[in-house]
Amino acid sequence: MTPSNKVGLRGGDQVSELTASRLSVYLRCLNALDLADVKTVSSRTLAEQFHLNAAQIRKDLAYFGEFGVRGVGYYVKDLKRHLRVILGLDRGVRVAVVGAGNLGLALADYPGFHREGFEIAALFDVERGKVGRKSRGGVRIVDMTEFRKVIKRENIDIVVLAVPAAAAQDVVNVAVAAGIRALLNFAPGTLKVPRGVKLKNVDLTVSLESLSFFLARGESDEGQD
Amino acid sequence: MTPSNKVGLRGGDQVSELTASRLSVYLRCLNALDLADVKTVSSRTLAEQFHLNAAQIRKDLAYFGEFGVRGVGYYVKDLKRHLRVILGLDRGVRVAVVGAGNLGLALADYPGFHREGFEIAALFDVERGKVGRKSRGGVRIVDMTEFRKVIKRENIDIVVLAVPAAAAQDVVNVAVAAGIRALLNFAPGTLKVPRGVKLKNVDLTVSLESLSFFLARGESDEGQD
Repeated sequence: MTPSNKVGLRGGDQVSELTASRLSVYLRCLNALDLADVKTVSSRTLAEQFHLNAAQIRKDLAYFGEFGVRGVGYYVKDLKRHLRVILGLDRGVRVAVVGAGNLGLALADYPGFHREGFEIAALFDVERGKVGRKSRGGVRIVDMTEFRKVIKRENIDIVVLAVPAAAAQDVVNVAVAAGIRALLNFAPGTLKVPRGVKLKNVDLTVSLESLSFFLARGESDEGQD
Repeated sequence: MTPSNKVGLRGGDQVSELTASRLSVYLRCLNALDLADVKTVSSRTLAEQFHLNAAQIRKDLAYFGEFGVRGVGYYVKDLKRHLRVILGLDRGVRVAVVGAGNLGLALADYPGFHREGFEIAALFDVERGKVGRKSRGGVRIVDMTEFRKVIKRENIDIVVLAVPAAAAQDVVNVAVAAGIRALLNFAPGTLKVPRGVKLKNVDLTVSLESLSFFLARGESDEGQD
């Protein structure tokens, strides 16, 4: 039984985005353990080492099959491979970035993407002055008029929006019309996508709020040193 | 009893980063409800509307005090205000970005930060050609040699690292020496901070993996349309 079949049986929409994010975090942890040449890990050790919840780990993983071995825990390389399959990373994922401003250029060259199996295969902009130039990492900027053609030719799976808020819905519409079913959006505001298309909004404020939270409670708990 | 005292009583390190992220997500949801002029919301409705877990919401919020009212749920504006206090946003949070490359410039002008109470008060770089110039949004680029002085003068709470991986640890050391206790890092690799200092790594790969996960399970459940 493949992981996606199993998810299908349980009803696709029951697996929340939060689960997907946690699986992604588990994969990061397993990568770190694998790099440190750790062979097996229990949910408890995994939880303690990376400040996670052991019961949640077991629940999340059990949902996709029985990966744990009694008395052993999880085989690191094995579970890593399984998670990559569940997350769809084993096949390589092809990504296009729309908007070659500061954010788009930074995303096109973001070192973490390639390492995990994401290929930034195209970078689009509407500005004539930018078209034909390349990001520092060598991704060529293509005119938005070529979008549909390039999306097909490059077999793009995911479109990343790094455009101003006012342009975002138009780009979503163009991408969906070109057959794109997964979009990552950095622009503020609410965007509409038809059923069957997934749009994920990245809100960098969440990370800053974690730190603000730490400072707010730290000032009464620890004091400054 | 202030939230931070209560957290202090329970032991500061018991409140995980995951909790902080969830509180931040709840605040996003409450902002949306408040905008839509919704006055009260139950944990169940909140969970259903935003694909969250109702029991987890109740547990997370109960940890900081009794915010829910039996038969009513939560008062949206009230809970929003409480969450802003818990997250330390009520006092305004002052942020400096180090690295005025594409990512640093994008972060300096990121529209979401200001809206939530974060002020990007400084932007640093080591390149002479960049110093004295401004981001599109008007944040002036200052020489790293001025770092300590500017951090003090501007009362910076959080430093954001948008520098190449090779430079990141040096910047952390300089920031910590200047009294900074919270850092947000976009560079890949592992950085060391002394006890009492919080470093949060942003991994944009996690968001792409959620989408890849959706595509991987979508292809067996729904088919392409």
